[in-house]
Amino acid sequence: MKGREAKITELKNALKKCGIKDGCTISFHHQLRNGDNVINLTLEAVRELGIKNIRLAQTAIFDVHKPVIEYIEDGTIGSIEGSINGIVGDYVSKNPMEKPVILRSHGRRWGDVRNGTLHIDIAVIAASAADEMGNCTGIIGKNPFGPIAYSQMDAMMADRVIVVTDTLEEYPCPYQEITENYVDYVAVVDNIGDPSRIAWGTTKITTDPVKQKIAHNCVDFMEAAGIVRDGMGFQFGAGGTSLAVTKYLGDLLRERNIKASFAIGGVTKILVDMFKEGLIKKLFYGQCFDDHAVKFFAERPLNTPVMNVGNYADPEGKSRAVESLDVVVLGGTEVDTNFNVNVNTHSDGRLLHGIGGHQDTAAGAKVTMIALPIYRKTNPIVREKVTTITTPGDVVDVVVTDVGIAINPRRKDLMEKVRGMDVFSIEELKEMAYAHTGEPLPPSTGKEVVAEVKWIDGNVIDKVYRVVE
Amino acid sequence: MKGREAKITELKNALKKCGIKDGCTISFHHQLRNGDNVINLTLEAVRELGIKNIRLAQTAIFDVHKPVIEYIEDGTIGSIEGSINGIVGDYVSKNPMEKPVILRSHGRRWGDVRNGTLHIDIAVIAASAADEMGNCTGIIGKNPFGPIAYSQMDAMMADRVIVVTDTLEEYPCPYQEITENYVDYVAVVDNIGDPSRIAWGTTKITTDPVKQKIAHNCVDFMEAAGIVRDGMGFQFGAGGTSLAVTKYLGDLLRERNIKASFAIGGVTKILVDMFKEGLIKKLFYGQCFDDHAVKFFAERPLNTPVMNVGNYADPEGKSRAVESLDVVVLGGTEVDTNFNVNVNTHSDGRLLHGIGGHQDTAAGAKVTMIALPIYRKTNPIVREKVTTITTPGDVVDVVVTDVGIAINPRRKDLMEKVRGMDVFSIEELKEMAYAHTGEPLPPSTGKEVVAEVKWIDGNVIDKVYRVVE
Repeated sequence: MKGREAKITELKNALKKCGIKDGCTISFHHQLRNGDNVINLTLEAVRELGIKNIRLAQTAIFDVHKPVIEYIEDGTIGSIEGSINGIVGDYVSKNPMEKPVILRSHGRRWGDVRNGTLHIDIAVIAASAADEMGNCTGIIGKNPFGPIAYSQMDAMMADRVIVVTDTLEEYPCPYQEITENYVDYVAVVDNIGDPSRIAWGTTKITTDPVKQKIAHNCVDFMEAAGIVRDGMGFQFGAGGTSLAVTKYLGDLLRERNIKASFAIGGVTKILVDMFKEGLIKKLFYGQCFDDHAVKFFAERPLNTPVMNVGNYADPEGKSRAVESLDVVVLGGTEVDTNFNVNVNTHSDGRLLHGIGGHQDTAAGAKVTMIALPIYRKTNPIVREKVTTITTPGDVVDVVVTDVGIAINPRRKDLMEKVRGMDVFSIEELKEMAYAHTGEPLPPSTGKEVVAEVKWIDGNVIDKVYRVVE
Repeated sequence: MKGREAKITELKNALKKCGIKDGCTISFHHQLRNGDNVINLTLEAVRELGIKNIRLAQTAIFDVHKPVIEYIEDGTIGSIEGSINGIVGDYVSKNPMEKPVILRSHGRRWGDVRNGTLHIDIAVIAASAADEMGNCTGIIGKNPFGPIAYSQMDAMMADRVIVVTDTLEEYPCPYQEITENYVDYVAVVDNIGDPSRIAWGTTKITTDPVKQKIAHNCVDFMEAAGIVRDGMGFQFGAGGTSLAVTKYLGDLLRERNIKASFAIGGVTKILVDMFKEGLIKKLFYGQCFDDHAVKFFAERPLNTPVMNVGNYADPEGKSRAVESLDVVVLGGTEVDTNFNVNVNTHSDGRLLHGIGGHQDTAAGAKVTMIALPIYRKTNPIVREKVTTITTPGDVVDVVVTDVGIAINPRRKDLMEKVRGMDVFSIEELKEMAYAHTGEPLPPSTGKEVVAEVKWIDGNVIDKVYRVVE
């Protein structure tokens, strides 16, 4: 037959046609974040089809995916390889699954899909617009979320690929992060999600004086260490503290009349504004973290190259964009006196966060800074030993807190550069924290393994244990 | 080591570092066409390194690559898998190599690189701009040629990848058809080539009345067959006749106040102008066939999705853009009474042309039209038997000549639609040709196989034999 045959069908039918069966692996991206509707819709269809024990291979899930708990309880989901944030993490912490959840960084997941360690039977890819042949995008449509950046490798490696969209575009879709040669079916649904809920946590610059102090300390350190220079490249993330760091760096660039070469996003309005003002020459980005950025990129502005996760951080790539960062500022739930950082669990042991690009950027950037307060409420954040090691201390260079900074002794070069600045040892920061809070309480955990945390080399760096209530 | 290490080195050194050795396979794209300098520069370096018997795996070579003959003669090149146009083809026709040249369509080559049939040791990728980490493009720089569309699979599958450029761009390169995670080295040369010589053959609308007549007959047929409709998709190519077909179709769209959904290019000024006028909603393209198009796309106009060859035509893809074409108009050196088309050889047996996308589009498009005169000088073009079968008659629907059209009897539907139009049988066209020229002279060929022509399924559809002078 010459000519084309449209690939449009209904989601449940697409799953059937893709040969869904008990125990199969189904993957998703998380770019609609807490506004995503596609994972829940798909799992509902999976259950209706009577399929059991699937392996969920999402890049991340959020509170909106609370129904995942039901699907675990009724046996629809048998295991999970992917980041879990919030409610589902809390549940799994208390109710371990038969197999531990496997946690990977963005880059490690991409690499493991590529090398077959994580084989996907069916990739389900949320797209805000698609044509009838499966060329698709996240940039335009009713519910745009920014360019699809996490699913290219899933599309290439999965046995079957379903694009799920709520906006059919006349062929050919004018943006195509995923192309038809990889797509089996296009499932049209009423609503892929709510982009206004992409924002997870705050995307406003913090007004908390503690966090503002941390942000100022970050930029003061960068300035003192000679990182703030014409042509710098940075990634700061999108939390309230990070946005403050971004703003303060912008003020400094403006004041000194110099420009950053590029920023890597999660892009928010503040980065877009700095780019428009000319303080940043190029936005090099995969994700959008607010509506403003989504709309901005839909106009195809010059000097805004899109970066998929393979380019960003594939550990087996020939290089990674993260290695071109002069500096990354990252958060954490805890840091210890060996500079190990916990991103995944809270001090009570609950698994509440994924890894994201934390490990990838920490291992890649010339200078890796961890920004956090020395304590939160009655809990010391700088401490003897983190509850879970997500990112090992040997790739962490500086810890920046509200009371001051500590430099990893390994980085004598940085120590030299900031001579004259108030620098504490990490032990001193810990002592200051304990002076406020006392010794930390050990988490009340059992022996059952809830999750395994992989390091970017593919080895398990730490385990998360059951929380006993 | 955290941070990046630049990949810039000199071309010969890059080849050495990539472990070049006797008998290895080196690939190239052809997007600078007759203006390319990179293949010759690389082969010179290969010879200087004393390497022998390489397999040349270019997507195409042109007259500018005449030095290839020397490298064959001195044993630097041992075999060739890739299209050859002009001078080198003429040479090889008369001086067969030990192994036949393997000719593939654009799509088949992509597929054979993907599936390992054509394993590449070193991919050498010409880029008009690159950053020091290897992110690169053909869109900007001193000698831009349009987006790199042929090399993504080479970059992914080759053991080693060298980007060759004459324009270093500050990191990150603002356009990135190839990304750093696939690149080993960036070799900087003085001059990758001369984009003003991308044009191969004419890129002006024909003034030859015979060709104008063919073009009018093409559009008249499309109109009669109901192909000219709002929302149509087409690919016509960039020769003089094709450009005339494009222009006449544009006149018709304007007159009828309808729009094509998309055109697939090789893009030339005339397509860009029709797009700007609103006669075509989207330009869906891989190659640029003139400077004007190159400059136009550098501005990132909306509704101009780039298409790599995998999306265009991978035979094992889940679909291909070529299948969305309502119509393709293709040329040929000969067509026979079984509607088989010869694209590769002239009637004297000389191998002078590659396959390009001929097979891919012919097999994909709803209606495949072959446009050619019934004879050229004293040589019948419509004839009993083509010298070489490139594209088999079972995917060819209509032959359009200066004296009229013939429809493949298989396409009764088209026959119905154009009832009332003067339609000849293909035998009648042949008889008219022979009435002018007499029976064709058989080519003076021997038994040695010069080249094997693969069909899109990977099987050899025909062979090209030595021309005996």
